[in-house]
Amino acid sequence: MKIDELYALLRRRGVLWPSAEIYGGAQGLYDYGPLGAALKRRLEDAWAAWFLGLSRDYYLIQPSEIVPEAVVRASGHLENFTDPEVTCESCHASVRAETLLEKERPQGVDGLTPAQIGEILRVHRVRCPTCGSNALGVPRPFNLMFSIPWGAGTEERAYLLPETAQASYLAFARMWDVGRKALPLGVAVVGKAYRNEIAPRQVLFRMRAFTQAELQVFFDPSDFVVPFDTVRDEAVPVLRAAAREAGHDQVETVSPSDLVASGLPEFYVYHLVHQLRFLRDVLGYPADRIRYFEKSEKERAFYNRIQFDAEVSFESLGGYREVGAIHYRGDYDLSRHGVGSGKDFTVTRKDGVKVLPHVLELTFGVDRNLWGLADVHLVQEGERTVWRLPPYLAPVPLGVFPLIAKEHGDFALRLADEMATAGVPSQYDEASSIGKRYARMDEAGTPYCVTVDGETLGDGPRRGSVTLRLRDSKAQERLASADLVGRIAPTLRPPRPGGAGP
Amino acid sequence: MKIDELYALLRRRGVLWPSAEIYGGAQGLYDYGPLGAALKRRLEDAWAAWFLGLSRDYYLIQPSEIVPEAVVRASGHLENFTDPEVTCESCHASVRAETLLEKERPQGVDGLTPAQIGEILRVHRVRCPTCGSNALGVPRPFNLMFSIPWGAGTEERAYLLPETAQASYLAFARMWDVGRKALPLGVAVVGKAYRNEIAPRQVLFRMRAFTQAELQVFFDPSDFVVPFDTVRDEAVPVLRAAAREAGHDQVETVSPSDLVASGLPEFYVYHLVHQLRFLRDVLGYPADRIRYFEKSEKERAFYNRIQFDAEVSFESLGGYREVGAIHYRGDYDLSRHGVGSGKDFTVTRKDGVKVLPHVLELTFGVDRNLWGLADVHLVQEGERTVWRLPPYLAPVPLGVFPLIAKEHGDFALRLADEMATAGVPSQYDEASSIGKRYARMDEAGTPYCVTVDGETLGDGPRRGSVTLRLRDSKAQERLASADLVGRIAPTLRPPRPGGAGP
Repeated sequence: MKIDELYALLRRRGVLWPSAEIYGGAQGLYDYGPLGAALKRRLEDAWAAWFLGLSRDYYLIQPSEIVPEAVVRASGHLENFTDPEVTCESCHASVRAETLLEKERPQGVDGLTPAQIGEILRVHRVRCPTCGSNALGVPRPFNLMFSIPWGAGTEERAYLLPETAQASYLAFARMWDVGRKALPLGVAVVGKAYRNEIAPRQVLFRMRAFTQAELQVFFDPSDFVVPFDTVRDEAVPVLRAAAREAGHDQVETVSPSDLVASGLPEFYVYHLVHQLRFLRDVLGYPADRIRYFEKSEKERAFYNRIQFDAEVSFESLGGYREVGAIHYRGDYDLSRHGVGSGKDFTVTRKDGVKVLPHVLELTFGVDRNLWGLADVHLVQEGERTVWRLPPYLAPVPLGVFPLIAKEHGDFALRLADEMATAGVPSQYDEASSIGKRYARMDEAGTPYCVTVDGETLGDGPRRGSVTLRLRDSKAQERLASADLVGRIAPTLRPPRPGGAGP
Repeated sequence: MKIDELYALLRRRGVLWPSAEIYGGAQGLYDYGPLGAALKRRLEDAWAAWFLGLSRDYYLIQPSEIVPEAVVRASGHLENFTDPEVTCESCHASVRAETLLEKERPQGVDGLTPAQIGEILRVHRVRCPTCGSNALGVPRPFNLMFSIPWGAGTEERAYLLPETAQASYLAFARMWDVGRKALPLGVAVVGKAYRNEIAPRQVLFRMRAFTQAELQVFFDPSDFVVPFDTVRDEAVPVLRAAAREAGHDQVETVSPSDLVASGLPEFYVYHLVHQLRFLRDVLGYPADRIRYFEKSEKERAFYNRIQFDAEVSFESLGGYREVGAIHYRGDYDLSRHGVGSGKDFTVTRKDGVKVLPHVLELTFGVDRNLWGLADVHLVQEGERTVWRLPPYLAPVPLGVFPLIAKEHGDFALRLADEMATAGVPSQYDEASSIGKRYARMDEAGTPYCVTVDGETLGDGPRRGSVTLRLRDSKAQERLASADLVGRIAPTLRPPRPGGAGP
């Protein structure tokens, strides 16, 4: 579906809508309705089951999303977390340089100086998109962080975190004390990040408040052993920086060993493959729509030594978009916070050697991938609209229908209640024909529907049985209502990577 | 335990710690570590299972926590969400009037004008708590909301919501369209709220960013039928406003029918009793430490027609503290947002009559109750520290130990992995004696521990069996490891209220 069509469907079904809609909306903010909130929660749970399942020393914490100024000063965000912005001197509208140059420079403006951007604007005679004038001003850096006054005075300021990662770095010392005092040590956060985007757009793809799921693995760079054999037999779709610079922009499929042979560390490739498996095997993105886009030294964030963005091609967005990434950040973060806080974050190895841990970061955009799950799995098949979500991601796993509300409603409601108590949430629906009820649940991504009918309540051989209908095959079968939990519940648990981790 | 002792234990175990601790902390902000994050999540899930279980027309959404200024102007927060603050003219420290008058006026300063507060300060000769001077200034209102610049310009502002409730009111029109177009309609949010408290204190009891779980029930005031018979046989501990005004400050135990006879609506008492049951039967607060404190007309928020605060007496805090409340807000919210947005939120009943829905609000402070669960259930019994959390609230439900790591470790790790796949998270521990491992899990609130030993792996009759040890009774039993899931998993699902709701 196109973006407008998909967004209209998601609004109509109450998956999401613009925040403060009755006041005309708030640019870059969205509310998740019942289906969206449940889907988001399941997506977050699937992420946690997978990435925390990689090692028993990877932990989930829930830190504050507000930090004192000293934190963002040390991290470099106060100085560097800016986006070049251009203001029209005629109508005073402000626009991101990247947006202005979308056609002329589709690769973006990362790494260019304001002067270079100004020159490109001039050469291409770019005009103000709001008023059409050619009086665009000089590009200047605009800090994307939201700051708030802190306490009763006016002198102190605090900041809404622009990335959850920082909170994990702040927690390292405490987590070291609480844990097994060994590396690697993983600290994961599923939380909000905030960016005062000049031009939020594409619904969930550039928001001003969004949810990230990030895992920071602190490790000893001379000793990070991973079970590489468990990932050796994979095919990894990559677009290497060097190939791009040589003019090749076709995705090539390579083996993990090839990647290591090209100079990437085993621990990096190991985690990259597990992220790829999550996108492909857990979220169900088609393999041929996924690629790992390597950022060159000029393109990547200044703290990254290695950066591959996980990208998926979405029909609604007209091409590849970043849905996650894997960053080797070196010791940048702990050394910066060491300087900023005056603390020493080196740890002592068993052999007595002191080491400042390096960081491997696995990022994942929750909202973006929620959109992605709609783009990829919500399809129109003739008259039928069906959201083919894996059962463990379905917002409502089960529909419970009485064939005739007056006669079978009590039994169906009791069944829905029993299923909920057993951990299977459901939606009860007694309105209109069974076919229309199936159609509503198909659209909501519900994989299972059961119907209670006369035979369920009768004295015949089918007493106590219900009709189970499967969304994907439309197949129907008859089974005892007591067997429903055993049939459905195991499919609702998100996959885990299994096997011994680092 | 006293507050300092309990807080020290929670920090040491990584349940929670001050945010940005390495920078000296950020007043009023806390980070939840692995145990705290898991406990908070289970507490939120228990809340949702209970309150959304009250009706199939009560839904959970996840709205934005940032709103445009128009929202807080309409809601009255821009004008009224203030706290009287006093600045010392000598040392310039700012202090909440309520804090200054803690001893002189333990009932707080709600409802007093700045002039009245100034008079009380003068009469009692209150001095600056920071410098000791008597040069305290005139009390003035201090708005507790955090505002942020919005977009590239400087003219627009947005606000961090001071209560999640507002987001539910904004969502009403959309939820009406998405749902069954019938009242009552419940909209629940578990989300962050933000208040620039002048004096955050008592750890999780007055924070600057905190999590609320709130249910807003929109209903027709002339037709809100509840199954009152299901709550009739309860004993409700109340402290009525009229009794307090007459000088009685003893809690009395009354029946729901008595409360209705005194003029409270049935729907109000019905939901109050369900909230009481949640606090007592689900969270396990002792019945004799809970009371419902009725706020008088002068004390309650200006939008409330009826307000009872749920209070629990905590040892660590030296007395009763509010952990939740139940508010009858009338049509205040939808009429204010109707005026503010220019929209009409009246809905048409089946008989054609138009009605502007009223709101019943059930609030619950997640962080406060997390503290409460530590205060009430984390106890010192001789040498033993044990956190007697109900199994469905335990951050880690299961400990998995090999008797001897080298011999039984593989089996134990595989068992832990199988349990995780079956939905039972566990902690694997091979360090030190089994007794010390039990002690660590007791302190973490883990209700079950299993030990893998030689007999598990042997060829004898106990092959495949493990020792299950129960935290509360310290009883041990032997069972097949394959039976563990069936034994443990059902106790990990939070209770639901059951029965037909409104």
